Amino acid sequence: MKWCRFDNGGKPTYGIVEGSNVVEVAGSPFTRYRRTARLHRLSGLKLLPPVIPPTFYAAGINYPEHVTWAARMRGQEPNLPKKADVGYRANNALIGHNEPIIIPKDATDQVQYEGELVVVIGKQCKNVTEAQALDYVLGYTIGNDVSERTWQRGDRTLWRAKNTDTFKPMGPWIVTGLNPDDLHVKITLSGRVVGEYDVKSAIFGVRHFISEMSKYLTLYPGDMLWMGTDGATENMKDGDVCDIEISGIGVLSNPVRRER
Amino acid sequence: MKWCRFDNGGKPTYGIVEGSNVVEVAGSPFTRYRRTARLHRLSGLKLLPPVIPPTFYAAGINYPEHVTWAARMRGQEPNLPKKADVGYRANNALIGHNEPIIIPKDATDQVQYEGELVVVIGKQCKNVTEAQALDYVLGYTIGNDVSERTWQRGDRTLWRAKNTDTFKPMGPWIVTGLNPDDLHVKITLSGRVVGEYDVKSAIFGVRHFISEMSKYLTLYPGDMLWMGTDGATENMKDGDVCDIEISGIGVLSNPVRRER
Repeated sequence: MKWCRFDNGGKPTYGIVEGSNVVEVAGSPFTRYRRTARLHRLSGLKLLPPVIPPTFYAAGINYPEHVTWAARMRGQEPNLPKKADVGYRANNALIGHNEPIIIPKDATDQVQYEGELVVVIGKQCKNVTEAQALDYVLGYTIGNDVSERTWQRGDRTLWRAKNTDTFKPMGPWIVTGLNPDDLHVKITLSGRVVGEYDVKSAIFGVRHFISEMSKYLTLYPGDMLWMGTDGATENMKDGDVCDIEISGIGVLSNPVRRER
Repeated sequence: MKWCRFDNGGKPTYGIVEGSNVVEVAGSPFTRYRRTARLHRLSGLKLLPPVIPPTFYAAGINYPEHVTWAARMRGQEPNLPKKADVGYRANNALIGHNEPIIIPKDATDQVQYEGELVVVIGKQCKNVTEAQALDYVLGYTIGNDVSERTWQRGDRTLWRAKNTDTFKPMGPWIVTGLNPDDLHVKITLSGRVVGEYDVKSAIFGVRHFISEMSKYLTLYPGDMLWMGTDGATENMKDGDVCDIEISGIGVLSNPVRRER
């Protein structure tokens, strides 16, 4: 099942994608819902981020090649995380499929993509085992954890490096019934493949993060966890288009604009 | 004006506190609202956190005496922040006035209060000057940024050190029309005064944070900013009651329980 969220004459509305159509839904996948008789052409809809989470979790550094690459860029030895210490991102930065990533005037040219699997929680949980963890997942979508690298290195927190408005593209929709271990990520910048990896090469997997987090935190419907990216990343410039494809989900595509 | 949020037979509802009564409101201070004819006794209500924010911002280290104290505890030289780099906290951890702070079984005895002013945004803003900043504030409430110090030092992020369930008491209500420069914070642990400071001794004030954040981030109605605490802090133990009083707002009181 593919859940999208779209601009319905100014009102954010959930829908179920079926082929080239979207069945409008009353309610949401996180509460109750019913299919309505209203049908939309997918191609005519403005898609919104498929969820606005109560809490926006991000694994951060979670893939060995990315950790190694990032450490070398800073002239340091790679230091793999020893525990699934989750971090945070911010809702202000979320945009949907096809919306532009806006690079602020005072950013350097080091504004880079990070293509990631996004896990969307469907049911409230606390103290769940790894074996139970996926029972609380609604489904999976795609995120681009856009990062300004000089701010990321120089500021005390990641506030503007990762959470400047438009720096968190997400979508196009949430797909249910997938096994995260089967998924493959491919990142394309203006038509050129710039990165590829298997989700299952993560240092800590989806089941482990959910189980560890839930020892201390209640996870709520709509909470989401961005799983981190692997490999090196490159700068995006004005006029680029960044596409993140995950097998079984689809393609999240966003143009890049620099503010003048 | 004093805005509270209370459990209205299972439905979170906003009210206006007038003396010992609460006028029930339809809507919220962040959208439209109207006073209803329903009146409640304040003493009979279960107060909820007065807002669940879209994004939960926290200044973190923002008072000189607290920075100096914390650095000495780690055997380091104090290093005052040079810029208003804001951090984040998480909604799962929010509890209201009088609700218990639950210390997990595996926490050390170093679970400490941090009494803080909380700024609640009332209107959407971007790129606002310091002179305009307070025009976008709805009002002020009180927060207790409860922290497990060994996790705070040892984990890669603050996820469980600061965001374990119940670690973010907030309330009892939001008060409008205050000048943050006039406010004084007093922290009491089981009847003993353990800390006092003036809000205006912050390294970076409310106007500066809002203006700086808004250069990169859109602030939305209901977003909130916890301003950090000053001075040393002490451990809280099972059976304690932690009260945070801010002049012009009131007292946020929470009992402390250790999970068995």
